[in-house]
Amino acid sequence: MKTNSIDPKFYEMLTPQNAALLLIDHQAGIMQGVHDFKPVELKNNVIALASLGKIFNLPTIITASYAQGPNGPIIPEIITMYPDVEIIHRAVINSWGYAPFVAAVEKTGRKKLIMAGVTTDVCLAFPAIYAVQAGYDVYAVYDASGSWDVMSQQCAINRMIQAGVKVVNWVAVAAELQKDWMLPTGPQLAKLFADHLTFYSMLIASHQAAASINKK
Amino acid sequence: MKTNSIDPKFYEMLTPQNAALLLIDHQAGIMQGVHDFKPVELKNNVIALASLGKIFNLPTIITASYAQGPNGPIIPEIITMYPDVEIIHRAVINSWGYAPFVAAVEKTGRKKLIMAGVTTDVCLAFPAIYAVQAGYDVYAVYDASGSWDVMSQQCAINRMIQAGVKVVNWVAVAAELQKDWMLPTGPQLAKLFADHLTFYSMLIASHQAAASINKK
Amino acid sequence: MKTNSIDPKFYEMLTPQNAALLLIDHQAGIMQGVHDFKPVELKNNVIALASLGKIFNLPTIITASYAQGPNGPIIPEIITMYPDVEIIHRAVINSWGYAPFVAAVEKTGRKKLIMAGVTTDVCLAFPAIYAVQAGYDVYAVYDASGSWDVMSQQCAINRMIQAGVKVVNWVAVAAELQKDWMLPTGPQLAKLFADHLTFYSMLIASHQAAASINKK
Amino acid sequence: MKTNSIDPKFYEMLTPQNAALLLIDHQAGIMQGVHDFKPVELKNNVIALASLGKIFNLPTIITASYAQGPNGPIIPEIITMYPDVEIIHRAVINSWGYAPFVAAVEKTGRKKLIMAGVTTDVCLAFPAIYAVQAGYDVYAVYDASGSWDVMSQQCAINRMIQAGVKVVNWVAVAAELQKDWMLPTGPQLAKLFADHLTFYSMLIASHQAAASINKK
Amino acid sequence: MKTNSIDPKFYEMLTPQNAALLLIDHQAGIMQGVHDFKPVELKNNVIALASLGKIFNLPTIITASYAQGPNGPIIPEIITMYPDVEIIHRAVINSWGYAPFVAAVEKTGRKKLIMAGVTTDVCLAFPAIYAVQAGYDVYAVYDASGSWDVMSQQCAINRMIQAGVKVVNWVAVAAELQKDWMLPTGPQLAKLFADHLTFYSMLIASHQAAASINKK
Amino acid sequence: MKTNSIDPKFYEMLTPQNAALLLIDHQAGIMQGVHDFKPVELKNNVIALASLGKIFNLPTIITASYAQGPNGPIIPEIITMYPDVEIIHRAVINSWGYAPFVAAVEKTGRKKLIMAGVTTDVCLAFPAIYAVQAGYDVYAVYDASGSWDVMSQQCAINRMIQAGVKVVNWVAVAAELQKDWMLPTGPQLAKLFADHLTFYSMLIASHQAAASINKK
Amino acid sequence: MKTNSIDPKFYEMLTPQNAALLLIDHQAGIMQGVHDFKPVELKNNVIALASLGKIFNLPTIITASYAQGPNGPIIPEIITMYPDVEIIHRAVINSWGYAPFVAAVEKTGRKKLIMAGVTTDVCLAFPAIYAVQAGYDVYAVYDASGSWDVMSQQCAINRMIQAGVKVVNWVAVAAELQKDWMLPTGPQLAKLFADHLTFYSMLIASHQAAASINKK
Amino acid sequence: MKTNSIDPKFYEMLTPQNAALLLIDHQAGIMQGVHDFKPVELKNNVIALASLGKIFNLPTIITASYAQGPNGPIIPEIITMYPDVEIIHRAVINSWGYAPFVAAVEKTGRKKLIMAGVTTDVCLAFPAIYAVQAGYDVYAVYDASGSWDVMSQQCAINRMIQAGVKVVNWVAVAAELQKDWMLPTGPQLAKLFADHLTFYSMLIASHQAAASINKK
Repeated sequence: MKTNSIDPKFYEMLTPQNAALLLIDHQAGIMQGVHDFKPVELKNNVIALASLGKIFNLPTIITASYAQGPNGPIIPEIITMYPDVEIIHRAVINSWGYAPFVAAVEKTGRKKLIMAGVTTDVCLAFPAIYAVQAGYDVYAVYDASGSWDVMSQQCAINRMIQAGVKVVNWVAVAAELQKDWMLPTGPQLAKLFADHLTFYSMLIASHQAAASINKK
Repeated sequence: MKTNSIDPKFYEMLTPQNAALLLIDHQAGIMQGVHDFKPVELKNNVIALASLGKIFNLPTIITASYAQGPNGPIIPEIITMYPDVEIIHRAVINSWGYAPFVAAVEKTGRKKLIMAGVTTDVCLAFPAIYAVQAGYDVYAVYDASGSWDVMSQQCAINRMIQAGVKVVNWVAVAAELQKDWMLPTGPQLAKLFADHLTFYSMLIASHQAAASINKK
Repeated sequence: MKTNSIDPKFYEMLTPQNAALLLIDHQAGIMQGVHDFKPVELKNNVIALASLGKIFNLPTIITASYAQGPNGPIIPEIITMYPDVEIIHRAVINSWGYAPFVAAVEKTGRKKLIMAGVTTDVCLAFPAIYAVQAGYDVYAVYDASGSWDVMSQQCAINRMIQAGVKVVNWVAVAAELQKDWMLPTGPQLAKLFADHLTFYSMLIASHQAAASINKK
Repeated sequence: MKTNSIDPKFYEMLTPQNAALLLIDHQAGIMQGVHDFKPVELKNNVIALASLGKIFNLPTIITASYAQGPNGPIIPEIITMYPDVEIIHRAVINSWGYAPFVAAVEKTGRKKLIMAGVTTDVCLAFPAIYAVQAGYDVYAVYDASGSWDVMSQQCAINRMIQAGVKVVNWVAVAAELQKDWMLPTGPQLAKLFADHLTFYSMLIASHQAAASINKK
Repeated sequence: MKTNSIDPKFYEMLTPQNAALLLIDHQAGIMQGVHDFKPVELKNNVIALASLGKIFNLPTIITASYAQGPNGPIIPEIITMYPDVEIIHRAVINSWGYAPFVAAVEKTGRKKLIMAGVTTDVCLAFPAIYAVQAGYDVYAVYDASGSWDVMSQQCAINRMIQAGVKVVNWVAVAAELQKDWMLPTGPQLAKLFADHLTFYSMLIASHQAAASINKK
Repeated sequence: MKTNSIDPKFYEMLTPQNAALLLIDHQAGIMQGVHDFKPVELKNNVIALASLGKIFNLPTIITASYAQGPNGPIIPEIITMYPDVEIIHRAVINSWGYAPFVAAVEKTGRKKLIMAGVTTDVCLAFPAIYAVQAGYDVYAVYDASGSWDVMSQQCAINRMIQAGVKVVNWVAVAAELQKDWMLPTGPQLAKLFADHLTFYSMLIASHQAAASINKK
Repeated sequence: MKTNSIDPKFYEMLTPQNAALLLIDHQAGIMQGVHDFKPVELKNNVIALASLGKIFNLPTIITASYAQGPNGPIIPEIITMYPDVEIIHRAVINSWGYAPFVAAVEKTGRKKLIMAGVTTDVCLAFPAIYAVQAGYDVYAVYDASGSWDVMSQQCAINRMIQAGVKVVNWVAVAAELQKDWMLPTGPQLAKLFADHLTFYSMLIASHQAAASINKK
Repeated sequence: MKTNSIDPKFYEMLTPQNAALLLIDHQAGIMQGVHDFKPVELKNNVIALASLGKIFNLPTIITASYAQGPNGPIIPEIITMYPDVEIIHRAVINSWGYAPFVAAVEKTGRKKLIMAGVTTDVCLAFPAIYAVQAGYDVYAVYDASGSWDVMSQQCAINRMIQAGVKVVNWVAVAAELQKDWMLPTGPQLAKLFADHLTFYSMLIASHQAAASINKK
């Protein structure tokens, strides 16, 4: 397609000032249905993404559907990280179809929305698509979301792309927000990478050990 | 692409009032050729999708090609569920190329078509593409359809997306139709999930057991 | 190895008279941890295996660990099928390390034990190995059991084989028990295959349709 | 995208009158490099596609690159099937960059081109993209083509889609061309399916056997 | 294990004089349930194995279970290749449990049995294990057999190995029987490889083309 | 094999009193070469296994090869967990070929050795095999070890099994050591499962939430 | 889409005169995190791509991020091949966000950019997208790049395609640049294929051997 | 099995003094049929294994079958490495069935044989099994061998294990031979690892760069 047929948003990047973080239905019950990621990977990724909200001081919204039923409560790691964020409880499946949720997003004043949800095909895809329609630039973080299997994940990703959503992994989100390792959040992000991008902690340990050999 | 270059239909959702259900060539012979899903999965998904027609009272059309030949009869589970729907028999491969089929669709008055077919590359993709051309918003349900292998499934999905078809899984269709768990169809859909989204029946059993511990 | 270095039991087969069925820890909570089978497959297989106890009138024992805790209750389908079997509740992990369980097995008088358990590496492998030591011929049904992932399943299978356990799938168990389609249980088993060996129901439907073409 | 932003060609279908068949570089040497299909699958698919040219009487063009070198000769099955088609020999990599090839295509007078080539990323993708630019509607048959591995196949498919090529499997091509099983080519195509869509020969054998049971 | 703890048969090889070929339940209906091989692969392998009986003049036995029911008839390719072999029809599941079958094997006077069957877990594994007990050296040809999925295939293979069966592929059987390419059956086997070990036909075509370049 | 041909050790289980823990070459450099597990999984499993030494108070030995070179230092998580264990540094590849290591094992007085190492084919397999020869009962924990790819992992597992090693996953080791959830280490192990057998933390969270609903 | 809605660049090809080569962050540390390719494949592909710069005399730019830290130095093979290219060192993550890098690109005067980077989702995708915005035609070479796993690779590829990047493999780049085997770079490229497209060296060896048989 | 039921050879290791290297049928034609490894991996592994003969000064035997036919010549890399080894040409399929080959092995006086062959199921498995029978301790190097697909590789591995062959990867062979990094061959092996165990070259580059930081 001609460059001018592509929406300029596809060439824009996230900044800590233009983005909000939306965590949708990361509930202990529904997450048991996730089979496109192993549980240890999914939890690792969800915590990593949630941590970006802290590191970059992003407005953060958390919502849950029927937490008192089988879907279960938001996982404790998120609750602990965001003790002051009031969870928005819904019976409406599409969170973007629930006015208080949309109001909370609008209140952030941010036009770029980093979203993750369990499951990808419903809890993430529905609000992601609606948000694009409402004029937002949506980053759907597929690896901090989860689906019934890889096929349904891919299907949901295709559908989001068809509607103009950007689908990304959490590391790319982190790198976009950081932009330059010299900026003040650099050390915090490096620590997050060491904790959640596991090979990196090994790289650091190796590097420090080697660097210290002749250090005296 | 610019938001305004995307057809508004990609931001619309299914409702029980705007959708019809089209079940194409779920025949006992041709289904033996399906290798992108295990038989137990495919049957589970087909029955789940077919049940949505009942739960949401959707106009439902069933068609078969050469049922008296090797392709075999529509599987008995569908026949039993829709005893009053007259099967439209064809020799024309593309069901949308067969006037009585198109007439039946038009008669529903619905503009959003939920379609599944065996096989995905022919029996689903051909009418899905033609229906988009005819102005319909098509939901091709890939996991209640089946193909020769995963590669040919993916190929058919790409082709449908290229022509403007929405490709979805049956759970997403169910969630779009339900919209809000408080609506009257909620309990029926919950039962369907328990029966066909297997982890959910376990979630419910666990939840009920735990909830009853202190219930006295 | 020389033929005479192989234990004769490897050339013996199951009969409805020499076998008992042991269902271990098929609990709604712990089954959420299974990732070597899709939920729909696992439930299908577990119900199929459990049904063999009914069809062939096998002594059947059901046990659970900590059903009141997160492991959850035995799945309702098994409870419904065996309303009169009293579940043996344990805190001991290895069911063969719990005297009432072993006593129940001994009471059956059967020397061939068909076992399945969730998870394969612990709840199935431990008692399977102990039972071989105690002189039983154990059939560990891997596909009515479940593990954390395929690797851990394979690891558990290797360990059981190393200790002299036979590892089989539920269809092979059914076929061994049936032996001859002319025996009285034939029609019941054919129905079970139609219900749980999904392609078979399609085969039957196709066959009946074709056979009826010239039937008049 | 809005329906009217989609090129009408995506809603058109092949007919025996509007299509030509282009077989590109199916050479015995280069085909050894194919690792996205097993050799038995690839050969089966290539022969099936080539046979469509015979069944539907399509203008057929065959080209080879450096057949006297390591790339080797066109496989004998194609030579035998098309003894009268003169192979167009090239040193130019992109067959569409070689005037005699383009001239041969133009001479067919057909605007829809069914193409397959080994390898997918070069021998198929290059002329497929150029042909779209030249105003043709291109059907790239990925499963009668072959690539270095599945990833490079997918990469080539994405690139062709990006340029407006239709990517399809040979069965879909066959079904488009046939359109209606009542048309004269029906029996020939049924035989081709029996020979190359292997499950179908078994379906037919089962059906005939069942149908003959009461046939007297 | 000490060398002398291994049965000497594991160091013996097949010859056209010591082996018989047993084809078990390659029926058009039951073969639709095979999902560890693609249909095109399975048929290719079954025909290749069956052809070895012809090339090496092996006593060949064919049996079927309930061919008049959904299991369907022996596939036509085998019937055509062995028009004079009378099919042994059974209702007994384990062919080795059916006296006429065992009698037919004994009548061959061969002590090494090349067996293939659909499905692997029942129709192949049961008689393979019984035959070992009866003192035969069994070659179970897993790739001319088929199972419900790869896991059940592997499970059946493990069980056969545990009982002392040799599990092999058809190419290894062919090579054992041939022993030396100079023996009279060499050209016939080379032709079989060209037809069914697909890459080999391409190798030959390339070789012949290259060899002829300077041939004058 | 006859029951009495199987070494009795295969029917014995680990206890906190009969076992020692050997952690071999979990070094930050060499672990980068692991491709049979994702880094996040491997680290999770290694820490879980190492923690069992703490929970069950097992004698624990840590060794490293060339830690000052590219192999890098033992990963910091292990160092932190075992600050008082002196790492045994070697240039000898097979740790069981290095006298101080063997001496350290002998000093524990334990005859059952739980071993993990990176890489599986060398650092784990070599000492595991030697230790069996020396009369130990070896538990090789494949999922707290890592190899170049899945094939080489499987190859190493087969070789260890051939030599009489038990190959297990860390969860099975934990369950063997715990034996009965009522024993004092129960709560500590439950916490370890919540932290490293990720689905279990979600199960607990769901259970507690459900149990508290009627708790008043 | 209508042909005229597709940017003409998708029908243009690379030439040695219109392209530059950009090698981004192929550093010995960060490359340890790559898990979508085996190390041997990735290095093979990176060297092959880098060699194209030499063969076709392309302006070549090399950049690294924090080479003195854990990310490590550019791999020695690239340094050795391009001893005269000064590496552009950055702390800015997106190389296109670093002015000296963009200036270097502009200085080449080329409008088609062949890019590869480790990792794909960040080091390749970010500058690829920015470069398209800046009016360049970008060829992102996915197989000379590397990502955390296949899913994140695919995600990055989708995102690049959405923004109008061409995603290709190195062999396709080589073939586009060569265009015609008769051009002077032919022999050099043939040698590169023999060295890095491994099957090709075997094809050549076979061909030469066969061709020499009658060569006298 | 009881420790004393295991042949002591399973606890013995290779040394440069007790081993010979046998390279069987690594021919440019037959290697095109290998599909369990990518060509780049297989060649890498074959060269690495062949190099061990040089580094450890092992008696090395090379054999080929019908090199003048489609199987093609021994790949040039081996020829170049062993210019003085005379290739043993055979028509007999099983190299151990060809007296000059066996004589050459006997002449080495070594009792441990490191073997690799293409293909695994025939060219490797046959002589490996015969050599065990003849009293040799055989190391079959599966990853310097190649088969038609992964299933046939696994099948061949199982068969070799059943007959008492050790199946290993080339890295394990290298490590057994080296035993201690302090021995004189250490630097040569380290170089081989850097060249063929690709991640290791990156590890070394990273380590050297880090170590040099404070080196002044």
